[in-house]
Parts: sequence; structure tokens; C-alpha cells
Amino acid sequence: MDLQALFGDVKYFVMMGSPARAETFAEVMANAFVEQGLPKPTVMRLGKTERYSMFKCGSVISVSHGMGGPSLHILMNEVAKLCNHVGIIDTVRWIRLGTSGGCGVAPGTVVCTTQAINDEIKPCWRTVQLGKVFEIPTDVLDMQFVDDIIASAPEDIPVVKGKTMAADDFFEGQGRTDGALTPWYTEEDKINFLHRLHDAGVRNIEMESVALMGFCQRAKIPAACVCVTLVNRLEGDQITSTKRQLAKYNEYSIRVVSNFIATTQAKIAH
Amino acid sequence: MDLQALFGDVKYFVMMGSPARAETFAEVMANAFVEQGLPKPTVMRLGKTERYSMFKCGSVISVSHGMGGPSLHILMNEVAKLCNHVGIIDTVRWIRLGTSGGCGVAPGTVVCTTQAINDEIKPCWRTVQLGKVFEIPTDVLDMQFVDDIIASAPEDIPVVKGKTMAADDFFEGQGRTDGALTPWYTEEDKINFLHRLHDAGVRNIEMESVALMGFCQRAKIPAACVCVTLVNRLEGDQITSTKRQLAKYNEYSIRVVSNFIATTQAKIAH
Repeated sequence: MDLQALFGDVKYFVMMGSPARAETFAEVMANAFVEQGLPKPTVMRLGKTERYSMFKCGSVISVSHGMGGPSLHILMNEVAKLCNHVGIIDTVRWIRLGTSGGCGVAPGTVVCTTQAINDEIKPCWRTVQLGKVFEIPTDVLDMQFVDDIIASAPEDIPVVKGKTMAADDFFEGQGRTDGALTPWYTEEDKINFLHRLHDAGVRNIEMESVALMGFCQRAKIPAACVCVTLVNRLEGDQITSTKRQLAKYNEYSIRVVSNFIATTQAKIAH
Repeated sequence: MDLQALFGDVKYFVMMGSPARAETFAEVMANAFVEQGLPKPTVMRLGKTERYSMFKCGSVISVSHGMGGPSLHILMNEVAKLCNHVGIIDTVRWIRLGTSGGCGVAPGTVVCTTQAINDEIKPCWRTVQLGKVFEIPTDVLDMQFVDDIIASAPEDIPVVKGKTMAADDFFEGQGRTDGALTPWYTEEDKINFLHRLHDAGVRNIEMESVALMGFCQRAKIPAACVCVTLVNRLEGDQITSTKRQLAKYNEYSIRVVSNFIATTQAKIAH
């Protein structure tokens, strides 16, 4: 592969959990460029699909990162090496998008992360080097980038700023009671914990933001995390929205990000 | 789906990183049954592929778990709930197979885990509930199960027992120096760390064994971890084997596990 030809013009790496969503995002992105009066780029699948699935849509790369911080972390290392290699490391921006549990916001709300919080409610990414633990800050590097994403959001989509908690676990780490094992806490402990998160400014819960913000702090890459909430955890663990509502919510973070990139690129072009 | 009809007869859940390997394993498993004089089961793909890919081959389920402990942990919760639901939780056995970095063993050696060690070189799985950290022991629940796997291994495959270190990181957590970021240690620190691991009994390094053994301790499910090593980390970070050698090594953990299951099932049948 001629890496320079393929990646030399890339402005955004957009990362998300599943391969299917990465393909959908690339297609939606192509149409968003057209809506802004720009030429429609061809969506190309790049590389193998063994670990991650990657698509190119003009100056945008859409790539799946699997589930959890460690899976995302391997991808971020590979992508950062690639960005270094083709000389775009100082200009590229990264965006993670996806779904999350909400904390005091209505299902369908898109949360743009201001700071990532770990499963011990600390604003840091726990990284281990040769057996020694280091805590890396997880503040957003460039808040203007986040504000620009929010300002460009389509009017029909509710978008808020807030802290995002990342757990290494979908169940007990997020205070759920529907995992396979019996948790060592009561329903009351759980509700108190979720309120403690809300009081700390947390508006959604997922599994990757801490690794994203921690790595990007070290790598000095501006990154945003744009996740739609599918449930308000203060009101319950189970999703109660209809299939149709969920399909619409799933599109929200995709539309917010694709619309931001397309409008930004259109301003530069015109 | 009629879960009882699909999963009621399952004896083994075999878990591994990639969807492609899960499909390969199911096919190799079907042929291994034939080699032992048993009927050839049809390999069936089950469910969606959005998060994990699952195949059924007679009494064996082959399923991908993605990369890292958190991704495996979500799958283990779903599989344990399924095993409970169809009433096989007290009889089922779980096996993770895959590739790993070796620690003082030649590339191509298959390591059967006796105990999982975390990235702080402690024999425990760090799990967080409502912000509070718990350390779960990561000893193998049933050593006879591990010994039986080793005893049944094909003669051409080198198999050893040893501890397995799991890191949440492919690069710095495993003492590599070829990640995107500059690590905060020297080449000498790294070699000392790898020797410290070897002295502690560690024979291979991967990213999932701690979550596997920790979860299975809590769930009381006998589990084995069978990973082939692709490189001896005491001698370097880069894989130096040829493509052909690597393809052969990749088959080793698959052959050890499929041969164990087929010979065990043949003994019961005859």
C-alpha cells in the first residue's frame, strides 16, 4: 500500500465500536459532503478486517475499534504511528462516536465529552509500564473543537456537554444489576452511585473515553468523544425505547459528527 | 431462537480473538471429530456478527471475543447468562485459545496457563464495583482439566505449563518499545522486567487471561487458557519467524484444543 497516497490528505480519524457502524458512517459522511455542496468522495475499504475495519471517504477515515479501552488503545497506537509516518500528526483530529448509557439526560441526547472519568470516579487514565502504575490526565485537549462540534449540530438533535465515565466492564463497573454474577451492592447503593456520578458532572457512561483522552493527552492529538445515550440510568438499566426510536438515536452521533466535518470542510473550500 | 435446542447439548465454549479464527476453529473441530471416528457435525453460524461471531459444531461453541479483557468480559457475562438459562452452567467448560508473546520459550510453544498474572505482576483480576476496587484471585479452578489438555496434545506440538501475564495494553504494558508513544523506561529496564516475569514463572504474555480466570473463579466455571507464542520476548519484540512458520504456529493452539475435545468426546462415546 502507498500509505502517503492513501493517508497523506486525511484530516479526521473517526473511530467507533463496530465494523458495520464504521461502514455506515463512511457512507453517511459521503452524503454529508454532497449536502454541503462538495463533491461526493468514493467510499473505499482499506486493509484487512481481521482486527479492525477501516474505510476512507475523502479526507475522513472511519474505523472500528472494538469494545473496551484496551482494544481502542491498540488501534490508537497503530493510527498514531501511521499519522506520524505520513506527516499528518500535527494537523489530524480524532473523534470517537458511539452509544452510551445516560446519566440524568433523556434517551437520544448526544453527550460531547469535556473530561473523561474512570471507574473510580477520577479524571485519569490508568496506564501501566513495566508493572508500575501511572495516572494520565483525561481532560479534553482542545475545548474549542468540542464547542465547534456542538455549535454545528443539526437542530433536531439534543446535544449537551458533560463528563463521561468509562468503565472496563459493562455490568458491575457501571452499576448494572443484570450481569451474570451477583454484584456485591444493593439497588440502593447503585442509585446512590449513579447520583454521585451525576453530581460530579457525568452525563454518560461508556467504556473507551478514558483511554481515548489519556492517550491523546500524551500524543497531543485533539480528540472529541460524541456519544448518544440510549437509556437514562437514573431511571433504570433496561432500554425502554422502541426499535424505531433506537434506530433514530443510533444515527444521532453519526449525524452530529458527519455534519460537523462536512460543514467545516465546506467553509474551507468556499 | 430456541436457545434450549441450540445450546442445551453444549459441553465446551471455545473463545478466541478474531471472527475469522472462530470460523476456522469450528471447521477444524468438525474434522477432529471425524479423525476420532465420530460423526461430522455441521458447522452453523449463530446470531448476528455486530459484536461477536459465534459458530456451533456439535457440542462445541466457537466464539470470537475481540481484543482485551473488557471485550472478553462482556462476552463472558452473556455466555454465562446463556449457560444458566439453558441449565448447563454446572457442566460446561470454557477454553480461551489464541496467540501470545513468549517469555523464555521458543516461538511455536503452546503455553497452558496455571495462573494468570496482571500487569502489576499480581495474581489477581482487578474489578471495580461502584467505584470500589476488588482483587479476585486468578488461579486455575481445575488443574486436572489443564493437565488433561496437555496430556492429549499432538506429539509434534511443544506444550508447556506456565503462568500467563495479561496487560491492558499491547505496547508499554508488555514492555514493548515499538508503540506510538515514547515509553518512560529504557531498553535495560525492559529486559530486567521481562526477566522478572520469567523468574516469577510467567511463560507468555497476552491481554485476556486475567479477566478469564478472575471471572471464572467467581462464576465457578472450569476454564483453560491455551495460547501459542509467536516470539520469545527475552530475545526481542519483533516476530522473526517466516510467514509459513507463523501459519503453522497459529494452528498449534487450535489443534491442541480441537484434539483434546475430540479425543475426550470419543472416549465418552466408545
